[in-house]
Amino acid sequence: MTSLTSPTIGPVALIGGGPGDDALVTVRGRELLGLADVVIADRLGPRGLLEELAPDVEIIDVGKAPGNHAATQDEINALLVTHALAGRRVVRFKGGDPYILGRGSEEREHCRRFGIETEVVPGITSAIAVPAAAGIPLTHRGLSRGFTVISGHEDLDVVPRASGHTLVILMGVKTLRRSATQLMVHGFDAETPVGIIESGCTPDQRVTLGRLGGIADLAVQRRVQNPAVIVVGDVVTLAHDWPQFPAPTSPASETPASTVPTSKIPAPALAGASLERSHHD
Amino acid sequence: MTSLTSPTIGPVALIGGGPGDDALVTVRGRELLGLADVVIADRLGPRGLLEELAPDVEIIDVGKAPGNHAATQDEINALLVTHALAGRRVVRFKGGDPYILGRGSEEREHCRRFGIETEVVPGITSAIAVPAAAGIPLTHRGLSRGFTVISGHEDLDVVPRASGHTLVILMGVKTLRRSATQLMVHGFDAETPVGIIESGCTPDQRVTLGRLGGIADLAVQRRVQNPAVIVVGDVVTLAHDWPQFPAPTSPASETPASTVPTSKIPAPALAGASLERSHHD
Repeated sequence: MTSLTSPTIGPVALIGGGPGDDALVTVRGRELLGLADVVIADRLGPRGLLEELAPDVEIIDVGKAPGNHAATQDEINALLVTHALAGRRVVRFKGGDPYILGRGSEEREHCRRFGIETEVVPGITSAIAVPAAAGIPLTHRGLSRGFTVISGHEDLDVVPRASGHTLVILMGVKTLRRSATQLMVHGFDAETPVGIIESGCTPDQRVTLGRLGGIADLAVQRRVQNPAVIVVGDVVTLAHDWPQFPAPTSPASETPASTVPTSKIPAPALAGASLERSHHD
Repeated sequence: MTSLTSPTIGPVALIGGGPGDDALVTVRGRELLGLADVVIADRLGPRGLLEELAPDVEIIDVGKAPGNHAATQDEINALLVTHALAGRRVVRFKGGDPYILGRGSEEREHCRRFGIETEVVPGITSAIAVPAAAGIPLTHRGLSRGFTVISGHEDLDVVPRASGHTLVILMGVKTLRRSATQLMVHGFDAETPVGIIESGCTPDQRVTLGRLGGIADLAVQRRVQNPAVIVVGDVVTLAHDWPQFPAPTSPASETPASTVPTSKIPAPALAGASLERSHHD
């Protein structure tokens, strides 16, 4: 690996901070963060790590809060280059993985144009870790042999509609109704299980479970908001909160019974199922 | 998060070790590894971390080297339960992410059947980090807006064949010729860029670049072997070693010119392009 210890110009470290839990950054990511002169940080990602930095480290928050006047991508690119050319050790600290729908590759290209070396440190992508924190594996023998990650802004008529494949939609809350309709038009069954995990891997995590045909209404009813990860496929039935037994005839919990029929997965004899709830809570 | 500090039975920590570089494990993963009484480890994953453990930690290697007599999944499941029920702090240390084609979800289900609590710690999946280590982002504005991960053992007629989507094939070296043919039959262009990264994120990393139509022959010629990650899509032209200028008429490098025509990506004015080669090498 390259090192941040002897900069002439730059280098810039492009670090994936993971899904939001401070402990889910990589060892290398945390190491480089501790060596930074200036940290250019997004709104998402593990904010607690920024509070641990030495007081003389400059933190530039370029977070793109919806509706706020956050930095544009051009401004972020300019910040990276300006500070690196000034000989400062620059960390670009991003949520998730820099190369998954995060424009990290563009930032690296921009640095390259100025002859600035970059070290790209991968991060845990929320596309995988957030479902996991709700008990949903993207692959599971007998249920899913692969997965597709796409943003809600894209056309969904190109995704695999085979059984045994999981679909993950990032940034998809606002377009959920259109996406669900589009998937059903292109062959997805209305009964396909769907899970929406808001603020995954943080103390505010909330999970909404339903079926493709009713998920848009359910999301409105529960006022589901970004940031959220949407999972579509049979693996959702493995979620911690998916009912393992026949649903009651009247809604007894936050999750309406009408949208969560009995799981197709046989319930194993569970002595410690309730323990699972504490995982990542 | 749950904790390994007060076990009655178990708990079992199911840890993703990442793609092979010791520094790409998560902070939480390394912390739990340091608290283990017994570590049940795969062949892949960052082996160096195992050497740092205290001498009284029992390391059980269940690595599935092809052709060797490695532990079966049933034997691994039994090991997890036996040691956890004996009150030992058990770490199941896996390569990549536990929930991506690694049967981690099955291991968790098995523990649940015995009332054993599990903590699942995500890891950096090689499906994303290994391409990144070769300079290939799975998404990049203008080239790819999403990606699909699948194993080479699966039928590939269900994957998206739209432009602007990246395909990642894990465990696909042996089935490469069949997979490439299948993709072309189902609409992929023979000129689609393909990258194969062997032993990614390790000192032995080797990258083979070509086009879908010729990649199977090229892989045979170069004796490409597992473990390897195969990337199919336009983002492969961003690889560190993808030629940025017209290829010579005779093969001057390890990568035959006939299989790597000039990139479609305009070459930016690069002052420091050669620096990139040191990244993750």
